[in-house]
Amino acid sequence: MPARHFDARRRVVIERVRPEIDGGRFPIKRVVGEKVVVEADIFADGHDQLSCRILYWDETDKEPHSAPMEPLVNDRWRGEFHVSEIGTCRYTVEGWVDHFKTWRGDLLKRIAAGQDVRIDLLIGAEFIEQAASRAAGKDEKLLREWAKHLRENADQEPGASIALEEDLLPIIGRYPEPFLMTRYGKELLITVDRPRAGYSAWYEIFPRSTSAEPGGHGTLRDCENRLPYIASMGFDVVYLPPVHPIGHTNRKGKNNSVAAQPDDVGSPWAIGSEEGGHKAVHPRLGTIEDFRRFVAKADEHGLEVALDIAFQCSPDHPYTGEHPEWFRMRPDGTIQYAENPPKKYQDIYPINFETPEPLALWEELKSVFQFWINQGVRIFRVDNPHTKAFAFWEWVIEEIKRDHPDVIFLAEAFTRPHVMYRLAKLGFTQSYTYFTWRNTKPELTEYFTELTQTEVREYFRPNLWPNTPDILSEFLQVGGRPAFMTRVVLAATLGANYGIYGPAFELCENVAVAPGSEEYLNSEKYEIKHRDLNAPWSLKDFIARINSIRRAHPALQSDRGLRFHETDNPMLLCFSKTTEDLSNVIVVVVNLDSFHKQMGWVNLDLQSLGVNNGRPYQANDLLGDGRYLWQGSWNYVELTPGIVPAHILQIRRWVRTERDFDYYL
Amino acid sequence: MPARHFDARRRVVIERVRPEIDGGRFPIKRVVGEKVVVEADIFADGHDQLSCRILYWDETDKEPHSAPMEPLVNDRWRGEFHVSEIGTCRYTVEGWVDHFKTWRGDLLKRIAAGQDVRIDLLIGAEFIEQAASRAAGKDEKLLREWAKHLRENADQEPGASIALEEDLLPIIGRYPEPFLMTRYGKELLITVDRPRAGYSAWYEIFPRSTSAEPGGHGTLRDCENRLPYIASMGFDVVYLPPVHPIGHTNRKGKNNSVAAQPDDVGSPWAIGSEEGGHKAVHPRLGTIEDFRRFVAKADEHGLEVALDIAFQCSPDHPYTGEHPEWFRMRPDGTIQYAENPPKKYQDIYPINFETPEPLALWEELKSVFQFWINQGVRIFRVDNPHTKAFAFWEWVIEEIKRDHPDVIFLAEAFTRPHVMYRLAKLGFTQSYTYFTWRNTKPELTEYFTELTQTEVREYFRPNLWPNTPDILSEFLQVGGRPAFMTRVVLAATLGANYGIYGPAFELCENVAVAPGSEEYLNSEKYEIKHRDLNAPWSLKDFIARINSIRRAHPALQSDRGLRFHETDNPMLLCFSKTTEDLSNVIVVVVNLDSFHKQMGWVNLDLQSLGVNNGRPYQANDLLGDGRYLWQGSWNYVELTPGIVPAHILQIRRWVRTERDFDYYL
Repeated sequence: MPARHFDARRRVVIERVRPEIDGGRFPIKRVVGEKVVVEADIFADGHDQLSCRILYWDETDKEPHSAPMEPLVNDRWRGEFHVSEIGTCRYTVEGWVDHFKTWRGDLLKRIAAGQDVRIDLLIGAEFIEQAASRAAGKDEKLLREWAKHLRENADQEPGASIALEEDLLPIIGRYPEPFLMTRYGKELLITVDRPRAGYSAWYEIFPRSTSAEPGGHGTLRDCENRLPYIASMGFDVVYLPPVHPIGHTNRKGKNNSVAAQPDDVGSPWAIGSEEGGHKAVHPRLGTIEDFRRFVAKADEHGLEVALDIAFQCSPDHPYTGEHPEWFRMRPDGTIQYAENPPKKYQDIYPINFETPEPLALWEELKSVFQFWINQGVRIFRVDNPHTKAFAFWEWVIEEIKRDHPDVIFLAEAFTRPHVMYRLAKLGFTQSYTYFTWRNTKPELTEYFTELTQTEVREYFRPNLWPNTPDILSEFLQVGGRPAFMTRVVLAATLGANYGIYGPAFELCENVAVAPGSEEYLNSEKYEIKHRDLNAPWSLKDFIARINSIRRAHPALQSDRGLRFHETDNPMLLCFSKTTEDLSNVIVVVVNLDSFHKQMGWVNLDLQSLGVNNGRPYQANDLLGDGRYLWQGSWNYVELTPGIVPAHILQIRRWVRTERDFDYYL
Repeated sequence: MPARHFDARRRVVIERVRPEIDGGRFPIKRVVGEKVVVEADIFADGHDQLSCRILYWDETDKEPHSAPMEPLVNDRWRGEFHVSEIGTCRYTVEGWVDHFKTWRGDLLKRIAAGQDVRIDLLIGAEFIEQAASRAAGKDEKLLREWAKHLRENADQEPGASIALEEDLLPIIGRYPEPFLMTRYGKELLITVDRPRAGYSAWYEIFPRSTSAEPGGHGTLRDCENRLPYIASMGFDVVYLPPVHPIGHTNRKGKNNSVAAQPDDVGSPWAIGSEEGGHKAVHPRLGTIEDFRRFVAKADEHGLEVALDIAFQCSPDHPYTGEHPEWFRMRPDGTIQYAENPPKKYQDIYPINFETPEPLALWEELKSVFQFWINQGVRIFRVDNPHTKAFAFWEWVIEEIKRDHPDVIFLAEAFTRPHVMYRLAKLGFTQSYTYFTWRNTKPELTEYFTELTQTEVREYFRPNLWPNTPDILSEFLQVGGRPAFMTRVVLAATLGANYGIYGPAFELCENVAVAPGSEEYLNSEKYEIKHRDLNAPWSLKDFIARINSIRRAHPALQSDRGLRFHETDNPMLLCFSKTTEDLSNVIVVVVNLDSFHKQMGWVNLDLQSLGVNNGRPYQANDLLGDGRYLWQGSWNYVELTPGIVPAHILQIRRWVRTERDFDYYL
């Protein structure tokens, strides 16, 4: 007889626990204070009643907390709890055949049918005595008294009412029969992050473009002077491309030309020279002390520094000499450069994660993160993680977060869906998305429904970027300033996490290097830029307003409350974000057409917004200051791209009428 | 560094393998010869090409067979294989980074771009040499020659064509680099059954009602005389309610009355008396030798005997005295009878699976199956398995099938969906369904789509019963003879497995004991019946015709090919069943209204039937002998309940026209 015999009396089955990512292989994600709703199919043979509960442990708990579960329909149970500590939380589910509950329900039916229940009351007394034997202290005493009282009155009138005593139900509920308990076979994990993991506004800037001198090579000190400007727009994170020495060999010139001129500065992603590799600061940017000072100055402005980690090397990187075994060799004895045949990227050597002894490589790469953590960095934007081994990411993120659970990793992977999701499962805190190329109503609706209303939301935190130094989308190229307004409103309201590459974005730079290309003309990746931040067309004030709306409205600080609403015009996108208690309700309407005024009707799902369908409500435009008095689900909007192509409406549910005045009654 | 370091170089990830029931906890089901289609998400970091395959083992295989997988879209791969041995088959999936395939694809791009590929050809030669070092014999020789030839010509004109040699691709494909291979972490199981598990027609009969003498107690010998009749209707399985001694204490009388008369025969499900329990034959039915003889006689008529196993006891069952610990005790010292408060079933004692030492109980119950296997039974219809512990079923079915993999277990569970599905997952070969209460077009469509087009089909084999001794459905009560015709056509064509309780069914017995009840008036459960099998309204010839259609048409012998088609009349249900190769195509149209002629249009999905939309096709009614020439997807039907309420149409796709004659061209 197999070992499972010893579980023979555990009659309860627990199936389809949600959330559970890939059978429990991966954790779900939350920020501190967030709620976890757990559901499971829980049932047993026969017709006995069950009781169920969640067990959960915060990072430092030895003993679990418990949260009750309630039945929904069709053997589905649900409960919830909140996570309160940064780190790794666990949860599981328990269910048991509850003979006392079954007996009590049956007793009610027997009494209703006028049956003799004297024997049944004695059965009940036995259940209570059994529970008492598992209890202690005051509970045990109460249960023993109850059983005794019931036995003594089983033959008499008050027996039934003693048996049905409601006050004692919670007490007996605490002492289920252990051999009847089934605990779900897995403890499921939650990565609990600090709040910024769930809500952040990023601003990407090339420090070398911050010199006060036109044409001069900016330094980290120059970049400090840019901090007030960035902070004034309301961003939280200032993200720097790699700050390391740049290779000389096969350096790319302006506009990615293969023949660099002597004064070309090269791409910051061609990392490493005789001046150092991933742990060095480019001498023209300054010193490591300058870097630490920059981190501290940013903090004074309420900004955190995010650093780009790009695990690849220029031909001049120290690794190429010290660790040739970390690269692929060609039969002619040279190191294999990056390729996407027939294209060749001879200024970049990819690292070979199939190297026979990956241990040393992994440790070295981990030490890069550790080095910058030691300089005060807690946010890393990881370049192209999808071209490095999955196993490495899982290992290194776990290693780093063990000692620094506050570290945030953003995955810059623009690749196939399964790969992007896998990286998020492996531990990346936030992820780049396809938002950059989702422009139409059906595209945005379908994609953001997938991200926020399916299992994906449990492990993948979207971070939305309308542009990056690599991507000037066609929408931005053709739509002029209104297109930039539309895209930043969408990014900042569809996503609790979003970012822009500036100042290219707020200055509406929109010229591509060639038709059909998404590369910027005169890309900042290959040259120093000098810009007039006060250009009259700058969107800095518009962006500042959006970020201040985000700060004032918690509904915009999470993606779980996203819901799309019908409109009768395909150019009008309407969605809402709400806090769970509906205390904060935001409705966004965006004109997706950058050229024409669009008007039409939006059909709000009022129930989801907590609005009473019969009463008027106020829709206050936080962006344009308009105030609208609406009633019913269908309401008219018109949006002119040349003015402001979007409403960000706060819904105020209680509009006073004469019936609210005392004298009306 | 954790142990997973040693997998650091395995870059391929395998996810979402299907079929996989509850994370591999349960096997899928097939009959011998059936196909298993396996899909998985398989991907790696970066842009290298992958190769993937299924590995599978039949019951007796030590080494796996392999079946290729092909990419679909979005990193999904698919392959298939057939199971060929009764028993337990296993399968899993492997994928690997295929450097040679990647290199070959890149080489084609480089050549197209006119690049110098001399170094690339040397890289290719290295890959071929590495494969050769893993090969042996003729393959090794061929690969070594290939590599040598390529090296010698790498600088010359024929180098590229040598590298791209297609004939050698399958050979190098057999020798992937082991350290790059990822095998899915689980071996998934298949319970492979004999064909009758997937295709069967059952006939339930009470042996005691087969006496030639009106009122006489039929015997197993009498029942032998009924076999030609049952066989003539084309059934495969003759299913007997319990044949054991029946209890006296609290025996139920006619129509379930609590006060039995002295000559009342009692319910066969009140098992056990001083004459024996679950391993005895009721003396009035005959001896154990008679039982064995009945099994042999049935076999002569092409019929298998299915025996009812009902693990419950009458108060007189030997177990109640020998093993009181297998029952619950009441405080007054009596055994707890069955209840559904406030209803009491005092003639039945349920077994208590929470008994402190279940081992002895389980072994005893297992020995009941073994006893009847020894008498020649290979099919068991298990009564109310949902009121016995799940763990017991999993154990006992595995134990029995280890020695007797040809045994079929039918779960008679009419209960909540999760419980029914769980029992199927635990090992029951076939299962009763809600078909009995699904009468309308939306009900039938939704339910049978769930059973045949979702994961449920992998483990739950429906067995459809229009009636049982417990259930005379309202549809049958009110619809007269046409209702019986409709329901048997539906059962026999929607379900490859189906059964009827006869002769009540073919004689259209339809009087309930009370309005709103599904109990038969004068139920055969409590008394002996004597019937005129040749009543003019008997459906025996109709049923014989249906069963002969099932035998002639393999499309009706499986449920996987079921598909519903649109009709413009809610009373007309239309569905098709097809073999996988579309060599056999059956379209069924049923009038669900037992009172009125219904007419309308059916809209066939011609592509799914393999019909060329532009050409006419024949629809031959196998039930009514009509032949219709149809063209296009929309076709007219009318069905009169008083005549035949259904078409079972065989679609013949190639109708000859003048263009088929030589002289037309």
